[in-house]
Amino acid sequence: MTTTDPAELADRVADGDLRLHELEDEADHETAATARRLLVERETGVDLEAVADYTFDAERADPNIENMIGAAQVPMGVAGPVPVDGSAAAGDYYLPLATTEGALLASVNRGLSTIRSVGGATARVTKNGMTRAPVFRVDGVAEASEVVEWVGDNVGRLREAAESTTSHGELLDVEPYVVGDSVYLRFAYDTKDAMGMNMATIATGEACEIVEAETPASLVALSGNLCSDKKPAAINAVEGRGRSVTADVLIPGEIVQDRLHTTPEAIAEANTRKNLTGSAKAGSLGFNAHAANVVAAAFLATGQDEAQVVEGANAITTMDARTNEDGTTDLYASVSLASLEVGTVGGGTKLPTQAEALEVLGLRGGGDPAGSNADALAEIIAVGALAGELSLLAALSSRHLASAHEDLGR
Amino acid sequence: MTTTDPAELADRVADGDLRLHELEDEADHETAATARRLLVERETGVDLEAVADYTFDAERADPNIENMIGAAQVPMGVAGPVPVDGSAAAGDYYLPLATTEGALLASVNRGLSTIRSVGGATARVTKNGMTRAPVFRVDGVAEASEVVEWVGDNVGRLREAAESTTSHGELLDVEPYVVGDSVYLRFAYDTKDAMGMNMATIATGEACEIVEAETPASLVALSGNLCSDKKPAAINAVEGRGRSVTADVLIPGEIVQDRLHTTPEAIAEANTRKNLTGSAKAGSLGFNAHAANVVAAAFLATGQDEAQVVEGANAITTMDARTNEDGTTDLYASVSLASLEVGTVGGGTKLPTQAEALEVLGLRGGGDPAGSNADALAEIIAVGALAGELSLLAALSSRHLASAHEDLGR
Amino acid sequence: MTTTDPAELADRVADGDLRLHELEDEADHETAATARRLLVERETGVDLEAVADYTFDAERADPNIENMIGAAQVPMGVAGPVPVDGSAAAGDYYLPLATTEGALLASVNRGLSTIRSVGGATARVTKNGMTRAPVFRVDGVAEASEVVEWVGDNVGRLREAAESTTSHGELLDVEPYVVGDSVYLRFAYDTKDAMGMNMATIATGEACEIVEAETPASLVALSGNLCSDKKPAAINAVEGRGRSVTADVLIPGEIVQDRLHTTPEAIAEANTRKNLTGSAKAGSLGFNAHAANVVAAAFLATGQDEAQVVEGANAITTMDARTNEDGTTDLYASVSLASLEVGTVGGGTKLPTQAEALEVLGLRGGGDPAGSNADALAEIIAVGALAGELSLLAALSSRHLASAHEDLGR
Amino acid sequence: MTTTDPAELADRVADGDLRLHELEDEADHETAATARRLLVERETGVDLEAVADYTFDAERADPNIENMIGAAQVPMGVAGPVPVDGSAAAGDYYLPLATTEGALLASVNRGLSTIRSVGGATARVTKNGMTRAPVFRVDGVAEASEVVEWVGDNVGRLREAAESTTSHGELLDVEPYVVGDSVYLRFAYDTKDAMGMNMATIATGEACEIVEAETPASLVALSGNLCSDKKPAAINAVEGRGRSVTADVLIPGEIVQDRLHTTPEAIAEANTRKNLTGSAKAGSLGFNAHAANVVAAAFLATGQDEAQVVEGANAITTMDARTNEDGTTDLYASVSLASLEVGTVGGGTKLPTQAEALEVLGLRGGGDPAGSNADALAEIIAVGALAGELSLLAALSSRHLASAHEDLGR
Repeated sequence: MTTTDPAELADRVADGDLRLHELEDEADHETAATARRLLVERETGVDLEAVADYTFDAERADPNIENMIGAAQVPMGVAGPVPVDGSAAAGDYYLPLATTEGALLASVNRGLSTIRSVGGATARVTKNGMTRAPVFRVDGVAEASEVVEWVGDNVGRLREAAESTTSHGELLDVEPYVVGDSVYLRFAYDTKDAMGMNMATIATGEACEIVEAETPASLVALSGNLCSDKKPAAINAVEGRGRSVTADVLIPGEIVQDRLHTTPEAIAEANTRKNLTGSAKAGSLGFNAHAANVVAAAFLATGQDEAQVVEGANAITTMDARTNEDGTTDLYASVSLASLEVGTVGGGTKLPTQAEALEVLGLRGGGDPAGSNADALAEIIAVGALAGELSLLAALSSRHLASAHEDLGR
Repeated sequence: MTTTDPAELADRVADGDLRLHELEDEADHETAATARRLLVERETGVDLEAVADYTFDAERADPNIENMIGAAQVPMGVAGPVPVDGSAAAGDYYLPLATTEGALLASVNRGLSTIRSVGGATARVTKNGMTRAPVFRVDGVAEASEVVEWVGDNVGRLREAAESTTSHGELLDVEPYVVGDSVYLRFAYDTKDAMGMNMATIATGEACEIVEAETPASLVALSGNLCSDKKPAAINAVEGRGRSVTADVLIPGEIVQDRLHTTPEAIAEANTRKNLTGSAKAGSLGFNAHAANVVAAAFLATGQDEAQVVEGANAITTMDARTNEDGTTDLYASVSLASLEVGTVGGGTKLPTQAEALEVLGLRGGGDPAGSNADALAEIIAVGALAGELSLLAALSSRHLASAHEDLGR
Repeated sequence: MTTTDPAELADRVADGDLRLHELEDEADHETAATARRLLVERETGVDLEAVADYTFDAERADPNIENMIGAAQVPMGVAGPVPVDGSAAAGDYYLPLATTEGALLASVNRGLSTIRSVGGATARVTKNGMTRAPVFRVDGVAEASEVVEWVGDNVGRLREAAESTTSHGELLDVEPYVVGDSVYLRFAYDTKDAMGMNMATIATGEACEIVEAETPASLVALSGNLCSDKKPAAINAVEGRGRSVTADVLIPGEIVQDRLHTTPEAIAEANTRKNLTGSAKAGSLGFNAHAANVVAAAFLATGQDEAQVVEGANAITTMDARTNEDGTTDLYASVSLASLEVGTVGGGTKLPTQAEALEVLGLRGGGDPAGSNADALAEIIAVGALAGELSLLAALSSRHLASAHEDLGR
Repeated sequence: MTTTDPAELADRVADGDLRLHELEDEADHETAATARRLLVERETGVDLEAVADYTFDAERADPNIENMIGAAQVPMGVAGPVPVDGSAAAGDYYLPLATTEGALLASVNRGLSTIRSVGGATARVTKNGMTRAPVFRVDGVAEASEVVEWVGDNVGRLREAAESTTSHGELLDVEPYVVGDSVYLRFAYDTKDAMGMNMATIATGEACEIVEAETPASLVALSGNLCSDKKPAAINAVEGRGRSVTADVLIPGEIVQDRLHTTPEAIAEANTRKNLTGSAKAGSLGFNAHAANVVAAAFLATGQDEAQVVEGANAITTMDARTNEDGTTDLYASVSLASLEVGTVGGGTKLPTQAEALEVLGLRGGGDPAGSNADALAEIIAVGALAGELSLLAALSSRHLASAHEDLGR
């Protein structure tokens, strides 16, 4: 006879009668989590009081985690508001950010405040496509060449198969790559308001069956790492994955001085030596100051996939001093995120705190037209990243200016 | 006269009397957070009920966030236990992971269970150094060359200055890089149980003053991106940052079949075509399946810096079928994380849920000897990543085996 | 009155009456070269006897060099013959190679001899496109977005403009990339039997005029480095440039032992640890042993652009031990060159020694159909590179086997 | 009875009595080359007249090539003279360049002429070390960790072994890298005036014997691709290989306008958008316009290893407009080549045309002190590359300026 007493359940796991992940088979999710905590507490001597104090229904988290014991709580704040002129985003936004890194939120807020003082930032999604790239084994390059040719001739059939698995997704492209006796096919999808990794995987799986049936290729792995998911890969930095999004702003020199206590020229110099030349020398795919900070904090607040911060770091920041006809200079500042993978449906977006954060942005759930909410989220995060870049580069260069002034004073 | 009524405070911000980040100047942290929520709720029409339901003292989060409105709650689970034979880790560990990605925890747990069945995994930290690389302006290459020479002759003085700012940190090395009229100095520190970014920054700032005083070099930015923090950079993948840590395990073929439903050969093939060749073709710095998933979830649970998941993805996974004298084969599996930046003191480690997670590992606070807790955390996360790699590659290759069997059945 | 006496001409240059590059304006090319040599000999005290002993007409080299003084002579040898089964190459080929690196030719010859003993190698060009990517300035991301959209809608017009400048070339694709206020358009062409850099540049220049006339974009540079020519860039390694070509061969284990004195398993291990894992750790775009050696020597012999050896090094070598049903193993060996830029017309292909080398291959001048000669050249060089890889890996692993045998003997 | 009649020798090869590479065993080198040409001529129907017309003794080329049939002749020119202020180079130099790319020499010459007009360029070698990185197999990470520790403790013994094989070379450093059950040791040497690849290989081979004798590590390959030779690898771009050398020059705006027909600002803009941002977006390790062109042509002229042009392309070009107190601007231009592998002894430097080219530079043979000739060669090539960068960027930006003027004229 089964029990729903957490302590007895914990005993049964300890005794080996039950496995750690089978607790939900024996009791409701809340009880199972309690039992699991009890077990861990006993074995480690730790009191999991805070972890136990979560606010969502345990069952609601079932699509998001297994072996649950509770929740991690990460402080959340807001920065802004900031006007965003985007392809999908339009209006003033408070940006929710969750982080444990002190000064980050203040830094972004300072940048957004400067951007707000000049009327806001512009942002555009210039490319969109979630990718999945299975790898196939062939006998050799002669077969590989046949497969490449077949794919070129049969994109329609692959599209039909792929799209049969999804009500929203659209296959945009299939690009083949050959390495010896391996053929990689990079499928790219418009996944609308979903981040789309699962959608792309399922659709691609269906398409692979056609490839296997019609060509000599045998599927080895549904992901062959040319996708490339959660790895720092040039293919994403160059060709994009998820949204490719750029945000920019033009700030008069006077405002740079009043608010950021430095000059367009000093910021431009710091950006060139640090973000461009320094990154170049480091062999980097990320030519920015700390875009990943904003991406990580916004992802955490809004229920995105934290591991995809990796791709979010593929960003290039430019800062230039533009001279006006009257001899004054403006600062042109931009950040271009090549591969920002975001969604407003699915994944962690349904959890209570994350859903509330999306609501603060007015972007919870599917957009109208489909995809517009995820586009808007990408544009707003890009503006947040721009604010972070501005703020950090200003801090670096104003410190330098300060010391330069001291130098002159000597 | 000031008020501590949240609604009135929110009014004052709305009226422009007070700025969003000044609320903590007017009231205690709890009240300020409440007022800020009220303001956001009014302006966006959202009810921030869940965000408001955090379990820590608002003031306690002050070093971690500004403009606080509450907390994001991310489901936390545990995987394991797993025996780890490390340089610092020793014994059985439950690994706490926080994530919103369904199936991740189950996958890691399956891998750990397999590892446990063969007595556990081995892990070693083989390199350790937190870096900070300021960029200096010089007049040209002649001066750059002088600075490089001066640094080579004066590492002792730089060490003295740097170490004067810290009771724990030790300067390990200073490596100069020249690009035109920019000189980058990459300082590497042993920061013991702290992740150490702040420690390294402060210490390097002090050393920079000596460089500026004694050479023609002028500091442009305390970080010149050769550090490289939170960017996908080859310098980290090659030379390491934080801990360079490897975990490995040898699994008899029989166990691979029983538990992972595939063969060492099939896993090795999937790894070669996907993680090695596929990553090569993608221009990647990450030659793994999904190490970032485990790094992100462990970082979130234990209070690490989420944006440093970027560097955590610089990992190489190897899987080989080793033939024994009796003709059977074992699977040798390893994952080598080049730049895993972890700490058990400071940052987010003090927050209640994160502190409890570290306690589950027995690694909260400073280790004895200093640095051993962070070493152990790195080793355990590496074993978790190894489990994730094993599990995913097994899933990919067993699916393939299944279809191969179907093929044979035709 | 002008003179055609070399000594007097040299005097005039020495006196500043004439500039070094103006000599051809005063005298025939032979005399000009003689005068220039005289001048250099006087000023440096060197006797340029060997440099003067060139075999071509100086005037014939006019499209290839300015300020000519003579020629560098690089030893040329042949390796082979080897049967090649390609998409364009078919039959037995002697491969001419020019190099100063001792042992290179012997190594390639040994590899080709092994390949010949199993009936030859297979090769395929799987992608073809010479690229040129101008960079344009726009006001900001809003304009950038407009330009991207305009380009998507007007590929036909761009094609018409581009193709108006060439009788052979065809525009395959135009791919836009946005970074802040810069827009890059990567034009890809089928340039048939020409390497095609000039053709692509001229055609793109024409297309740029349309872009400037019809959009707010202003051309900053006709090459914006996303081409990317003569730089080690991931975009070429991933997407290809010139020909993407793979060569492979299957060698029975017995032959590996007889001819290469090692085993498929030992070669596969060396390849995995060196070319895959080692390159991965090095942050490399080249996962091979020494493909650039063969590319450089073949380029030099056949009049290709030596600086494009850079792109030729973007190659992945795979070596696997394939087990047969009878328990024996074969070695599957391949090399995939992502960006091999070759031509059989134009450039250095018309110079006498280079033309003769192309004739040895039966590939001098334009092919029938157009492009087939350059395809064949790419396939033959790929087979040469495969031979070099095989030979070097065999040497490495047989040395290892030898020492392993010694170990066993102890 | 052996014959020395080329036709009979060719017959014997055709009949299978003799192998292609055995001809030198039967006759002198000249005869062997003649016989080999005859054979190729017969089998391909080509008249190898030009290839046969080489100027060196066939035997002299024996260390440089096997299976010789003659020589490739590549047009050689000179650019300059240009004053170089280097750490080793000092004075005015004519730079010999061999190429088949029309306009290259003219372009470099124009750049050098501009540099000459401002008194020359500065250059410095800021790092020097030829590397070789063997890969060892260990049982797992526990052994790997032991090996790393042992190496750290025994650099002295490794140095003794390594240096026992060379009269000139000095071991500078041994850096260990761990990936699973592979350990890579990157040995760096000062190889003085030799490019040093062979020296480094032999010395490392000797050191490897100690490693194998004293640790559990087994050598798999003497090169494990972390060297990294002739591959486009970040490790070289970041840490350097051979010489790390920078050249720079400051050019008054007036001279930029008079000689290059553009402005410092326009050149700086083109450099930023093309060489920095464009290369960043391309995932490049080369942030320059065409440094490889100059490296390739100088390598060919002076007998360097053509395949090492690959590493020579790891260069960063910077161009900045520096504002003076009087409001005028100067152009600061630099190029930093991270991994330029050059020598003035050994390799192809002894062949007649190459030796003469080195004599033109006054750098044939060993320098005094040892290493100074190779240093000087590196510095002069860097100045040549700087000239090429200046010239091409000026051409790009002046074309732009011209069209800008046209725009204004409308």
